[in-house]
Amino acid sequence: MGKTENVQMLGITVKKDEDFSEWYNQVVQKAQLADYGPVKGFMVIRPHGYALWEAIQNYFNKVMDKHKVSNAYFPLLIPESFFRKEAEHAQGFEPELAWIEKSKGEESKDEERVAIRPTSETIMYDSYAKWIRSWRDLPLRINQWCNVLRWEVKQTKLFLRTREFLWQEGHCVYATKEECDKEVRLFLDAYKKMVEELLAIPVIAGKKTDSEKFAGALYTTTIEALMPDGKSLQMGTSHNLGQGFAKSFGLKFLDEESKEQLPWQSSWGFSTRLIGSIVMVHGDDKGVVLPPRIAKQKAVIVPILFDNAKEKVLKKCSEVEKTLSSINAFVDDRENYSPGWKYSDAELKGIPLRLEIGPKDLEKKHVVVVRRDNGKKEFVKEKDIKKRVGEILEEMHSDMFNKAKKFMDANIVEAKNWSEFEKGIKSKKMVSVHFCGDASCEEEIKSETTATSRCIPFDQKKSEGKCVKCEKPSKEKVLFAKSY
Amino acid sequence: MGKTENVQMLGITVKKDEDFSEWYNQVVQKAQLADYGPVKGFMVIRPHGYALWEAIQNYFNKVMDKHKVSNAYFPLLIPESFFRKEAEHAQGFEPELAWIEKSKGEESKDEERVAIRPTSETIMYDSYAKWIRSWRDLPLRINQWCNVLRWEVKQTKLFLRTREFLWQEGHCVYATKEECDKEVRLFLDAYKKMVEELLAIPVIAGKKTDSEKFAGALYTTTIEALMPDGKSLQMGTSHNLGQGFAKSFGLKFLDEESKEQLPWQSSWGFSTRLIGSIVMVHGDDKGVVLPPRIAKQKAVIVPILFDNAKEKVLKKCSEVEKTLSSINAFVDDRENYSPGWKYSDAELKGIPLRLEIGPKDLEKKHVVVVRRDNGKKEFVKEKDIKKRVGEILEEMHSDMFNKAKKFMDANIVEAKNWSEFEKGIKSKKMVSVHFCGDASCEEEIKSETTATSRCIPFDQKKSEGKCVKCEKPSKEKVLFAKSY
Repeated sequence: MGKTENVQMLGITVKKDEDFSEWYNQVVQKAQLADYGPVKGFMVIRPHGYALWEAIQNYFNKVMDKHKVSNAYFPLLIPESFFRKEAEHAQGFEPELAWIEKSKGEESKDEERVAIRPTSETIMYDSYAKWIRSWRDLPLRINQWCNVLRWEVKQTKLFLRTREFLWQEGHCVYATKEECDKEVRLFLDAYKKMVEELLAIPVIAGKKTDSEKFAGALYTTTIEALMPDGKSLQMGTSHNLGQGFAKSFGLKFLDEESKEQLPWQSSWGFSTRLIGSIVMVHGDDKGVVLPPRIAKQKAVIVPILFDNAKEKVLKKCSEVEKTLSSINAFVDDRENYSPGWKYSDAELKGIPLRLEIGPKDLEKKHVVVVRRDNGKKEFVKEKDIKKRVGEILEEMHSDMFNKAKKFMDANIVEAKNWSEFEKGIKSKKMVSVHFCGDASCEEEIKSETTATSRCIPFDQKKSEGKCVKCEKPSKEKVLFAKSY
Repeated sequence: MGKTENVQMLGITVKKDEDFSEWYNQVVQKAQLADYGPVKGFMVIRPHGYALWEAIQNYFNKVMDKHKVSNAYFPLLIPESFFRKEAEHAQGFEPELAWIEKSKGEESKDEERVAIRPTSETIMYDSYAKWIRSWRDLPLRINQWCNVLRWEVKQTKLFLRTREFLWQEGHCVYATKEECDKEVRLFLDAYKKMVEELLAIPVIAGKKTDSEKFAGALYTTTIEALMPDGKSLQMGTSHNLGQGFAKSFGLKFLDEESKEQLPWQSSWGFSTRLIGSIVMVHGDDKGVVLPPRIAKQKAVIVPILFDNAKEKVLKKCSEVEKTLSSINAFVDDRENYSPGWKYSDAELKGIPLRLEIGPKDLEKKHVVVVRRDNGKKEFVKEKDIKKRVGEILEEMHSDMFNKAKKFMDANIVEAKNWSEFEKGIKSKKMVSVHFCGDASCEEEIKSETTATSRCIPFDQKKSEGKCVKCEKPSKEKVLFAKSY
């Protein structure tokens, strides 16, 4: 059957380097990762997209288990008074809160106004204040996987900017600042490792400037990735909250000398926007390219059927499927679809490997293995399949990571003065530059270039210089870029 | 150190058979399974309780994977117009909806009124209508794990009756009624198996009467468990939704002859109330008793320390911990707590096994193993530990299930007439009785006895009789009980 029309319908109609934004929207929807919901700003995460989130959850649950973080669940609705308790925090989230109508009659008239959580610091710490009594209860490390809601008015972008999204938020309490500092970095480093090892995306870890830190935090650390359009994407943050929330919510503990002390707190989170970053960094004109380690089904087996050897070919496909069960290989045995149509479908969805098996391959006792990222074909002897496919997947992971790393490295430039800075931002680079750290200076830079500070990278040589904007002395360089 | 006061504080101050309701409230909170949230009707699920939910999720995700159900995520907020599309469904949920305030200025004035999902049929089927085109797209099987909200005004009971709870909701679409019927039962049977095998709780599977079926369903099937206070707890339901939602939301498909057809739909769900059932069925005056298969940490190892052998004992404890790592055994090596305090703490939390290791046990090359459910002590040779502990855990599971089964069987009685029926309900039994199925008749029974029909058990002999209330002919027996 001629299925050319379908291939066209399935395919992406714009090129990644011609209209990046439209390309992204098409890929996300046509590859069935996500759809727009019926309410403005909301998304439906479809099974193919949700499986990526589950892979991330499985990976990170193991990391948290190792570091003695327990999962829990706190209420969706937060009382108005809680937002008032920590002034900076309240101010940061107020404009984006969705409040619940009081329409329940008598019952709710006595009840306080409540909003859907934009993040859970306040409601979690209200409980923490009840649970923590002595130094024996510390450190307390709790995480929750949940939905949060921020009533953004900017244009929706699936996975990247939606009013509701899924995330994890870890919230820890420590006896000392030192412990808190140490673990703020511990979880940021765990994020970096996960993003690089599972998503094959290189990131830069650093500290946020005061203007960009979390509302209510002492300081914020972040991992930032560079997208192909030159914009930086914040992939995860880890905050030292200091003792401000503890004061506001009444957290205290008796130390070993039975003296009352204020504890230190941290919080850290990443969200479903990670899925968007996978699409943007690795995708191509044919669709998604899934990094092999995160793909649940790592290989599709496509039978090339001719009447004379139909059964034999299908039997072999089924054998190979079993051989590769640990990577969830599956046979695409849908009838009435041509092999070409199946190739396109698997490419659109980003399945890492395609195995082709036809009558000639049976004769030669090999299978054809095609990599999604670079289209490279390899004939693999039947007896070597399991071993070789495992190797190819790992090679693919490294190649994808290295390609993205090369792109990132090539697109971070140093600026010595304002004109170099402006030129860098205009030409879609991340620009590393001396900067004083002042909020007013940062605001000026933003209004002139639309770029914001992304982070003060941890990994930089000591250097003295002058702020690119105000020329006050600066002791470290800051990365600026446009951002999502 | 004398820690008697603490043991008292930790302990449950009422007996299960004296004040069941207060006993339940104390156990749930003191064992740190859950707490009340700051907003009326909301709960905080603490790590010890959430771990049970995670065990249930892990178990059931495997079941769904086997039956080709994919997880996905749909929006939290549902437009008002969606609730209007299916009349019965709308009527069922209307009183419990929480609406979002329109206070966002310009932006939201054009937007429709939205409510937090009480269940997701409507918003999921809106997407399904877009995704389904032909018979090739069927069956479609999607599940989501999420929070839902029903603004109940009845008194809150942790895990059993809260405004927000966590659940899974499976939503499937089929080409024929036969397939739909078959899988409605398939997932109900999977629930029964899970509850019996993982939670060690026996249930009765059956069909709901029309009065008790899900709003908008053709019919509802259920599994019901008997709680120690004689009330029935609905543990999970599986509905055949017929074609009503398909009509209302525009789901249709082209069959193999390219004719347009209406599909059949099912939905099925269970919630965090399952955690409440574990507490009620298995708990005792000392606290929770966790069924071994659901407990993450299946054994606590308590060192009995004397100055002369402290290091040796701790070393042995650590060895045993390693030997039993597959059941997540852990040493309670907290200082300043006596072994007795640790025993009480582990009993309160319901850890299935306690291993005691002291100097004498080292000499005799054994450890003492104590079962949480019946307190039975056993000396297990060091070399047999792994094997024997595994066996004891399985024995414990069977004994707990059988004990609950015996209780249930002894508390289901047959009634031949109204007086026997009333007597049965009054004496806290589930009563099996002939019943006509009429809503009006059921309403009368409810107003006179507060009992409702729980289910028409699948597993019953054919029998002819007369309705216990109106004496119209009846062809099957129905189980009635008070319920949660």
